[in-house]
Amino acid sequence: MVRFMASKVRLYVEHPLGEGQSVPLTREQAHYLFGVMRLGEGDVISLINSRDGEWDASVEKAGKKGGILLCQAQTAPLQLPPDLWFLFAPIRKERTAFIVEKAVEMGAAKVMPVQTDFTQSVNRVRQDKLQAHAVEAAEQCGGTFVPPVDDLAKLSAVLKDWPADRQVMFCDELLIGDPVALPDLRGPWAILIGPEGGFSPAEREMLRGLPFAHPVSLGPRILRADTAAVAALTVWQQALGDWT
Amino acid sequence: MVRFMASKVRLYVEHPLGEGQSVPLTREQAHYLFGVMRLGEGDVISLINSRDGEWDASVEKAGKKGGILLCQAQTAPLQLPPDLWFLFAPIRKERTAFIVEKAVEMGAAKVMPVQTDFTQSVNRVRQDKLQAHAVEAAEQCGGTFVPPVDDLAKLSAVLKDWPADRQVMFCDELLIGDPVALPDLRGPWAILIGPEGGFSPAEREMLRGLPFAHPVSLGPRILRADTAAVAALTVWQQALGDWT
Repeated sequence: MVRFMASKVRLYVEHPLGEGQSVPLTREQAHYLFGVMRLGEGDVISLINSRDGEWDASVEKAGKKGGILLCQAQTAPLQLPPDLWFLFAPIRKERTAFIVEKAVEMGAAKVMPVQTDFTQSVNRVRQDKLQAHAVEAAEQCGGTFVPPVDDLAKLSAVLKDWPADRQVMFCDELLIGDPVALPDLRGPWAILIGPEGGFSPAEREMLRGLPFAHPVSLGPRILRADTAAVAALTVWQQALGDWT
Repeated sequence: MVRFMASKVRLYVEHPLGEGQSVPLTREQAHYLFGVMRLGEGDVISLINSRDGEWDASVEKAGKKGGILLCQAQTAPLQLPPDLWFLFAPIRKERTAFIVEKAVEMGAAKVMPVQTDFTQSVNRVRQDKLQAHAVEAAEQCGGTFVPPVDDLAKLSAVLKDWPADRQVMFCDELLIGDPVALPDLRGPWAILIGPEGGFSPAEREMLRGLPFAHPVSLGPRILRADTAAVAALTVWQQALGDWT
């Protein structure tokens, strides 16, 4: 006999969560829960809000334009990711969404799309869409924290205002074949994934001149940007993050 | 000024490659090169065949139903992946294609879709489609080797005939939060990624009883199967593969 997994619907809300707390639903949330997922009064879902962990909540009122949930009990504590920013150059729309999803799953504290010299600017990057992908990734993967997604900014501008105590692991295609080495420095970090096509010579020179930037190889093969994202997050989490 | 990357078209063929070797094209290949990519006689592309490395080849004859290429010079030697099999439980169609792509990019020598107790059998797994994804991944990522993709087989049957000298790293959701530890055993290996929903209790018991199977945690968060695939390949390549 096969055991089927009955997974509870998980929903991210802005509202505080706590025992006996009632949570009003937006029109979109009501549509999703009662229209798409066909839930009704008395049904129980999981709520997260990036602050209070995960809570069971029952549907108290279900309407077409809204509704009310009632928090029952905390089912998981808040699990914050390490203090890791994730910078990447947006690529094609679908893969950009994918990179955001992976950054959330792998435990980034903040997601920062950056415009590099070789970033294709074919698609406008919509912060609200990317943030929605981050929410969905946390909802689907059991996360209790949704990292904020910044607006697209120029890499040069981001690095100009960079906090001096935050190290950057930058993944450089030119290092292909070199050993994968990450300096054993604790504290805040960031990962920077270049665009497909790599960094420009000017960017590479600038990065190499920054005392907090550390070039890291991701093995002997050329990786797509989305693969490099997960691989880099794995390397960092294993060496300096919460995998140990 | 932005420098644009002009990347040569790369094509996988079955034919031997070598200096002065002429390579006939199938109808599909001719359609791709001359119809889709708009190439013509005199244009130069890259060829790979999993055996002879990468070769520059010029278009000698371009037709609607076929054509002939002529090998000029080797541009890269054959780069074989480590002796690593990659076993995974197929999930939704799009993500299954994605997992195959990632296994190729990250350097697996063989891709083996396996049917587990909790594998969703909604979509039939078509070996030819998955093999085509593997070819495309190698073509697009500069690889010179395309791993063979096996037909779907039952996990229990695959493990029954397992070669005793091949270790298996199996990624077990139940280990979430444990340290990521891979025994330092050299030689042939395999990675086994379970389905979303995890292994069944019976499978877990079976796996734990096999002397060559090593349960490995992939950090404190629940990962989707495609994320777990890249993360596991990264862990393995770093510890025992060709990243060092």
